[in-house]
Amino acid sequence: MSAWLDHIKFDDQGLVAAVAQDAASGRVLMVAFMNRQALEETVQTGWATYFSRSRQRLWRKGEESGHRQRVGEVRLDCDGDVVLLQIHQEGGIACHTGRASCFYSVLQEGQWIAVDPVLKDPEAIYGK
Amino acid sequence: MSAWLDHIKFDDQGLVAAVAQDAASGRVLMVAFMNRQALEETVQTGWATYFSRSRQRLWRKGEESGHRQRVGEVRLDCDGDVVLLQIHQEGGIACHTGRASCFYSVLQEGQWIAVDPVLKDPEAIYGK
Repeated sequence: MSAWLDHIKFDDQGLVAAVAQDAASGRVLMVAFMNRQALEETVQTGWATYFSRSRQRLWRKGEESGHRQRVGEVRLDCDGDVVLLQIHQEGGIACHTGRASCFYSVLQEGQWIAVDPVLKDPEAIYGK
Repeated sequence: MSAWLDHIKFDDQGLVAAVAQDAASGRVLMVAFMNRQALEETVQTGWATYFSRSRQRLWRKGEESGHRQRVGEVRLDCDGDVVLLQIHQEGGIACHTGRASCFYSVLQEGQWIAVDPVLKDPEAIYGK
């Protein structure tokens, strides 16, 4: 069955952290969480599915934005509590702010500076 | 003072996840946790300091192994609960198993396969 899932140390809420890295650029796009079902679905379908802690349900990345993530390689860390996904990011936008990556703020002289451009207006992405 | 620290959403244990990425290769090396003091020290000293959950104390990365991490850029994600560090890894080894990265296991046909070489015997690293 899915014996590989038994190697993963889900936390006391049944979640494991997942780092999504852009397979082409190497940029870290986002960090989210997966439960067992989300991870299994991700591997079976080849599309990233997370577990939304705020909504307490499966979150098929891109279900609203269209910015789905096709998953290449899946890695696990040495203590089995973080997975690393190589991602092909549809639309080139992973962040709900319309930026390529969620990590768009850089610490410069004691301040967080948003250094990456908004590629698409979130209102256009989410149709609000 | 450190107003930039107030933008970070530490969890109910006072921790924030930190992703360490190799600045040269782009490889994701490890994911660990920082408390407020660890993050402040990291930024002040330019060397990665984490908070060890197992030992419940500050963990100056490399304090035993010598594999310290010099920190370049520090980024924060859109919801303020993950930091991303660009790292210059001393010795080229981040993992306690003697490998470059903690993410050395790849999911292949339903099995986790250790695909990266051990660069240095852990017994030699830790002098046991």
